[in-house]
Amino acid sequence: MDFVGQHILSVDQFERIDIERLFDVADEMEPYARRTRITRVLEGAILSSMFFEPSTRTRISFGCAFNLLGGEVRETTEVKALSLAKGESLHDTARVLSGYSDIIVMRHPRAGSVSEFAQASRVPVINGGDGPNEHPSQALLDLYTIRKEMHEQGRGIDELRIALVGDLKYGRAVHSLCKVLGLFRSITFQLVSPPGLELADDLADVLRARGHRVNVIHDMEAGISHVDIVYVTRTQEERFPSPEAARRYRGLFRLNQAVYTEHCEPNTVIMHPMPRDSRRQARELDEDLDANPNLAIFRQTDNGVLLRMALFAMVLDVADRVHVGAQAVHWYTARRTPR
Amino acid sequence: MDFVGQHILSVDQFERIDIERLFDVADEMEPYARRTRITRVLEGAILSSMFFEPSTRTRISFGCAFNLLGGEVRETTEVKALSLAKGESLHDTARVLSGYSDIIVMRHPRAGSVSEFAQASRVPVINGGDGPNEHPSQALLDLYTIRKEMHEQGRGIDELRIALVGDLKYGRAVHSLCKVLGLFRSITFQLVSPPGLELADDLADVLRARGHRVNVIHDMEAGISHVDIVYVTRTQEERFPSPEAARRYRGLFRLNQAVYTEHCEPNTVIMHPMPRDSRRQARELDEDLDANPNLAIFRQTDNGVLLRMALFAMVLDVADRVHVGAQAVHWYTARRTPR
Amino acid sequence: MDFVGQHILSVDQFERIDIERLFDVADEMEPYARRTRITRVLEGAILSSMFFEPSTRTRISFGCAFNLLGGEVRETTEVKALSLAKGESLHDTARVLSGYSDIIVMRHPRAGSVSEFAQASRVPVINGGDGPNEHPSQALLDLYTIRKEMHEQGRGIDELRIALVGDLKYGRAVHSLCKVLGLFRSITFQLVSPPGLELADDLADVLRARGHRVNVIHDMEAGISHVDIVYVTRTQEERFPSPEAARRYRGLFRLNQAVYTEHCEPNTVIMHPMPRDSRRQARELDEDLDANPNLAIFRQTDNGVLLRMALFAMVLDVADRVHVGAQAVHWYTARRTPR
Repeated sequence: MDFVGQHILSVDQFERIDIERLFDVADEMEPYARRTRITRVLEGAILSSMFFEPSTRTRISFGCAFNLLGGEVRETTEVKALSLAKGESLHDTARVLSGYSDIIVMRHPRAGSVSEFAQASRVPVINGGDGPNEHPSQALLDLYTIRKEMHEQGRGIDELRIALVGDLKYGRAVHSLCKVLGLFRSITFQLVSPPGLELADDLADVLRARGHRVNVIHDMEAGISHVDIVYVTRTQEERFPSPEAARRYRGLFRLNQAVYTEHCEPNTVIMHPMPRDSRRQARELDEDLDANPNLAIFRQTDNGVLLRMALFAMVLDVADRVHVGAQAVHWYTARRTPR
Repeated sequence: MDFVGQHILSVDQFERIDIERLFDVADEMEPYARRTRITRVLEGAILSSMFFEPSTRTRISFGCAFNLLGGEVRETTEVKALSLAKGESLHDTARVLSGYSDIIVMRHPRAGSVSEFAQASRVPVINGGDGPNEHPSQALLDLYTIRKEMHEQGRGIDELRIALVGDLKYGRAVHSLCKVLGLFRSITFQLVSPPGLELADDLADVLRARGHRVNVIHDMEAGISHVDIVYVTRTQEERFPSPEAARRYRGLFRLNQAVYTEHCEPNTVIMHPMPRDSRRQARELDEDLDANPNLAIFRQTDNGVLLRMALFAMVLDVADRVHVGAQAVHWYTARRTPR
Repeated sequence: MDFVGQHILSVDQFERIDIERLFDVADEMEPYARRTRITRVLEGAILSSMFFEPSTRTRISFGCAFNLLGGEVRETTEVKALSLAKGESLHDTARVLSGYSDIIVMRHPRAGSVSEFAQASRVPVINGGDGPNEHPSQALLDLYTIRKEMHEQGRGIDELRIALVGDLKYGRAVHSLCKVLGLFRSITFQLVSPPGLELADDLADVLRARGHRVNVIHDMEAGISHVDIVYVTRTQEERFPSPEAARRYRGLFRLNQAVYTEHCEPNTVIMHPMPRDSRRQARELDEDLDANPNLAIFRQTDNGVLLRMALFAMVLDVADRVHVGAQAVHWYTARRTPR
């Protein structure tokens, strides 16, 4: 796949080789994201960031990534601001707004809406999440984090053993992560969920057909032993048919330091697509793990900036010009250690 | 009129010569808006964009126009954010906020509010729409589009024949467009509306007094024959005294390809102030016209960026410096053809 | 105190010498804020501006200050956008968002929330107001204004005579201003409030213990005679236990030109933390004072930009590099006199 000028709508667009090229570019973004150097490669370019569903994290991550490449960001965050309120079609909105910017990131509550928008857009569109459907940059940053964490242990992604824990039925992030992991070789998937929240059979079958090992497990403690990664997810309560249906699952699977110590291997990396639910009755990932150096959840969100910079750089065809004219940073950039 | 440092509040401020100068500057913005070159002429300048009424299109168009000149944009989009909630006068708000930026664009639901704000502002204010009253940049971009479309046919604006179709009573865009067209010579206005939604008599009389031909017509098909431009408008349902009063007019006048083919001249250009209402019961401008090369509605919105860049450049007195130090663009900027 | 890399959470962090250094830096920001020169010292840096409570004035003031130093601003203005809605802790939000920017300004309705956020942040956090608790940049800009106004009269802050008028019980601005004024020498505080809205005794006692003169006065006209500054405040109606409790105080103390002429010294400077309440029943500071050259309220808000630029410059350690490579401004920047 050639990234240049393409819409980024789904993880299904990518082959393994595309992902590896993208990750190599993401690695090169490190000095810019860590503020040791600045680049102005996209100075004068405009990102139109359109979030028709609340999202602080993803919106700011994309916006900062574009700023870090030197570009400007114009933002829309109000659902009701959309001219659709006056009967405008998504097609018209896309035709018009795509005349105002060089690239668009869009989040929308309806599955398929971002693809529909992209069809009428004259500039590349990146899907920032279309309801329960796709959120490709999340899957890519998760996989990129896995690559970096495994690299620290002197390994690659092939032959990874990963436990996916929690709500595997409604969790969009899990579905997409399975797909991109499936592009690699000999992955062991431990699908650890309460009965009723299992991963859809067809996706599991696809993974098996590709030669991966897929185990369906209902006992968390058994599921998280002997893996390289434990990827824990929040129960997606907002996607359940009713609040009562969701409440049954609250707090069923909880990972904390005691469980980790007893059941995990000493190097097992802990991940989560965030936000984690820290309310007393939920706590799928306890805060007592914050002192555990294998907790990678904040490295994940940091990696999101690198990954999104790489997406912008490749789609806008400046990946090989990022370093041209780059300069040292001369303001305070030390990162403190939070208490 | 000297644009430098002026508020842009109403189309009544302009003479024909002012408009022609403005349009000449807009023409020069083409390479920057089309991303073949970048300019940083307003690097360091700040636009304060204050939208106290929802608007995606106009807000982003102004914001991108300022970014394309190299400036920064600070935005306010929430009505309730306004300190007025704590009893602050519009005068105080203007005095304070005008200390923060170099120029202000403001939209507000109340007629006259932007002028009132401008009186207390220490920096130039551009009216981005004050309720049913004025929206000068819309009228100017419409006229600019007419000029460009006619230029393609080897003509000017003088002696234009234009059909204004639909809700001519509540349509703010139509009123302002009539005024600026009235500055030119020997225009034929075909005022095509359902009975009850005619253009106000006093405006029609002013146009006649200036020597233009003004015909009031209730039959759409007759009205759109023998014109250079068909300018269709949405029924401004939100401005009617009641939803019932508005509903009577829904779908009365509809232009589609079949009607166009049967009644229009082959070069007749189709315009619309957007958004068009694509709901089944409305559809004043059918989507089957999207394949018609004379449909200029997306060229209109693209032209809006050029026109707004020109307004900023002239008010801030940099029109003759835009090209100084301009550079080539080196990222992907091809515009795709939407499906 | 060393500003570099520090959180700015409370006026209690500052000694007199810190404040004087800060103000000296603010003075140097004048040509940039007045748009006679531009600096790009923070080009490439990102401010994350997170306002979880409506605020136009403070948010735009901080944002413009950062833009004027050459940096970019990413903004969040919606309370409900916060992932907290999905059960995320403030700690997690801070850990994540602080990976996206170089510095954060945050406003939040809950007292103590900004400090809590700062503890988990990896980058410096500036408190933009945490409910009834602290709003340090407001106190600092007030004091900075006092310094400049007194300097015009050939004096310093020591031995200042100031009348604080109005709601001294709920007014956050007054409390913080008293604290920073208390760092100077021999201040006379005229605490002028209706019975029931007096300044808290403990704060008054602290000021007395430091050797200042503190007079509690219930008669406005007596209180505002023989002072250098009259600092009038709005009744903070939203912080009263009930609307009825607040309404009793509405309009009790009003300063207008007639009262000023009769009771104030000719050079007495009038200040207000803004917004002033211009509704007929309130009007603690009448608009007929707008023609009075001693009315400093709009100079206060202008000074806010200088002060906030200085805070950013000192925390990010670029105060001594601001002038490097600074350039002349070549666009229209004349400030008009409002009508």
